[in-house]
Amino acid sequence: MRLLGLDPGLQRTGWGVIEADGNHLRFRAAGVVVSRPQDPLAARLDALYRGLQEVVALYRPDVAAIEETVVNVNAGSSLKLGQARGVAMLAAAHAGLLVTEYASKTVKRAVVGTGAAQKRQVAMMVRTLLPASGDVGADAADALAVALCHAHHDATQRRLAAAYAAAVSAE
Amino acid sequence: MRLLGLDPGLQRTGWGVIEADGNHLRFRAAGVVVSRPQDPLAARLDALYRGLQEVVALYRPDVAAIEETVVNVNAGSSLKLGQARGVAMLAAAHAGLLVTEYASKTVKRAVVGTGAAQKRQVAMMVRTLLPASGDVGADAADALAVALCHAHHDATQRRLAAAYAAAVSAE
Repeated sequence: MRLLGLDPGLQRTGWGVIEADGNHLRFRAAGVVVSRPQDPLAARLDALYRGLQEVVALYRPDVAAIEETVVNVNAGSSLKLGQARGVAMLAAAHAGLLVTEYASKTVKRAVVGTGAAQKRQVAMMVRTLLPASGDVGADAADALAVALCHAHHDATQRRLAAAYAAAVSAE
Repeated sequence: MRLLGLDPGLQRTGWGVIEADGNHLRFRAAGVVVSRPQDPLAARLDALYRGLQEVVALYRPDVAAIEETVVNVNAGSSLKLGQARGVAMLAAAHAGLLVTEYASKTVKRAVVGTGAAQKRQVAMMVRTLLPASGDVGADAADALAVALCHAHHDATQRRLAAAYAAAVSAE
């Protein structure tokens, strides 16, 4: 299964695609889609939308995951981030992808082992788990972390479902 | 010229269409596009996007205007609003409409005469300026107010451009 992770932002939206085959995880691609600050907001949002559409067309992921980012700086920056996030989710949904949301803490816990991990630790673990990803930028690393989190949760879900099915058939 | 005003919200996005012929303004239609709270976020955003696409297909506005809403409650509600707002702007942009943003104060000043106007006063002035709109809901009234604000600014722009052209040709 191929997973698309998204780390939305109005100026830079990170994306990362990984291949999950049971417990085996493999880096596929990662990058950022950018918008130009000098453009009108509608054009910037459209640039993000189209950029992500291209990523999906190129790497054909099966599912998508996005971080439930909350910026505590101020309402204005949350509004900006929200606009980019809404557009990123819409681009994934329009491509037919189911989009799962993960709290920032859940992503950190899945990748580093603690919800209080630093951004630097997340990037380091991404590089350890996906050596082929090399030295990707911070936004792409965050997007890969979300994809890894989803792979982890998805595998857990499947193991639980299998255990449940086995228990039921043993009755 | 036909103007579409938008008052975005994740649960309810208000919209209003007015016809502006010089200083003559006429109500065309108004309503809300809703999303179901029990649906996943991506599906809710898509519902708003498609709902607005239908409005645009039906009423064929020439331009769109949207309020620069800032919620001061908390970062979480700003993020939610931002997501709806980003999707509303994208829907308008994908329909080929230029989207102009107006600060909340600018809308109030254009419609009521003061940037500190109450929501109730805005609704009352919308009803006075567009009697045919009748007793539309609060979200639709807010959307009509944004459309009225845009008509006002657009007329001012055109008068300024005409005055400038006259001054230049008189030189």
